[in-house]
Amino acid sequence: MTSAAPRRRGRPSRTDSADAPAARDRILAAAREEFAERGYDKTSVRGIAKAAEVDPALVHHYFGTKEQVFEASIAGAMGPLLEAPGSIVEGPLDDVGERLARFFFGIWETPATRKALLAIVRSAMNNEAAAGVFRRIVSTQVLRRIAGRLDLPDAELRAELAAAQLVGIVMLRYVIKVEPLASADPEQIIGRVAPVIQAHLAGPQ
Amino acid sequence: MTSAAPRRRGRPSRTDSADAPAARDRILAAAREEFAERGYDKTSVRGIAKAAEVDPALVHHYFGTKEQVFEASIAGAMGPLLEAPGSIVEGPLDDVGERLARFFFGIWETPATRKALLAIVRSAMNNEAAAGVFRRIVSTQVLRRIAGRLDLPDAELRAELAAAQLVGIVMLRYVIKVEPLASADPEQIIGRVAPVIQAHLAGPQ
Repeated sequence: MTSAAPRRRGRPSRTDSADAPAARDRILAAAREEFAERGYDKTSVRGIAKAAEVDPALVHHYFGTKEQVFEASIAGAMGPLLEAPGSIVEGPLDDVGERLARFFFGIWETPATRKALLAIVRSAMNNEAAAGVFRRIVSTQVLRRIAGRLDLPDAELRAELAAAQLVGIVMLRYVIKVEPLASADPEQIIGRVAPVIQAHLAGPQ
Repeated sequence: MTSAAPRRRGRPSRTDSADAPAARDRILAAAREEFAERGYDKTSVRGIAKAAEVDPALVHHYFGTKEQVFEASIAGAMGPLLEAPGSIVEGPLDDVGERLARFFFGIWETPATRKALLAIVRSAMNNEAAAGVFRRIVSTQVLRRIAGRLDLPDAELRAELAAAQLVGIVMLRYVIKVEPLASADPEQIIGRVAPVIQAHLAGPQ
């Protein structure tokens, strides 16, 4: 065991098993930083390894290809979003719109989470592989779980149109920063948007 | 006058005034192509000039900086969108939602326009200068004209939330391509979205 020894920068041993979870976490954190700073195209496994102070082989060992590192870093950044739909949709359907809107802005108004999520959105906009990862995670883990609870013939389309309202607000408020939306009080936005989410998810045919 | 002479590639005279409108249009068309293919960051005035077969000085002469070429190419691509809000909002307010949704999908379902608009959206996502140009055009020419007709205290925020619903659909349907939204019949989407636009623009406080 070498875990108590001082770390040699750049070349930790791959067999240093006591240190493995820490190295894995460090790689993930570095990957999130790199994808956020540079976007998907300009990020390399080598650059992630350098930022995490590990050998590139260790990145491949834990995660595989760049696309797979991206997927793992998305899953990490979206953790709270991915765990939430259950609790959001499980309550009574007649205020699901407000619960979802409130939860969504809770996440986006937190600067650290916002930065990670913006990086994902930007990457998905610019790279087909990144878009594929985003699509897969959002479709299977968020939208279908919400749609599954609705028990309506066009539940998936409804869930996606509700998501579109929120995604569009992300674009105009956090990316393009159109005023007055960019500076509006989240409560004012929630007040206007909750009924829209509600109508999409549970409104009449 | 040299307009009937065979064109020498790359170095047309800047004083070739009979040819000026054609050169200007060629530069704009080349700029749209370049921004669409490469994105804002990777497009250069030199590259646009080369694609248009003119001297880079002519691009500067007609348009100024790269940012200004981008603004002119956006204004061109968004021409139909920029001319429309008047006619859309001038009709009766009680079906403004459907008119706007129908007009919006009419534009986005046309492949050539869609390509140019997607290039603008991608550039605005990735570059602060491009985002600024997009913000200025959308705010002053689209949203404020719509909001000006509404005569409500929070008209601008309402117009932006309506726009957010449409922008989000652009993202999920045309960029990320989430199913079933990506393949849904436009009429089905319009049927669900028109009431949302209507509520945002003209619904109760």
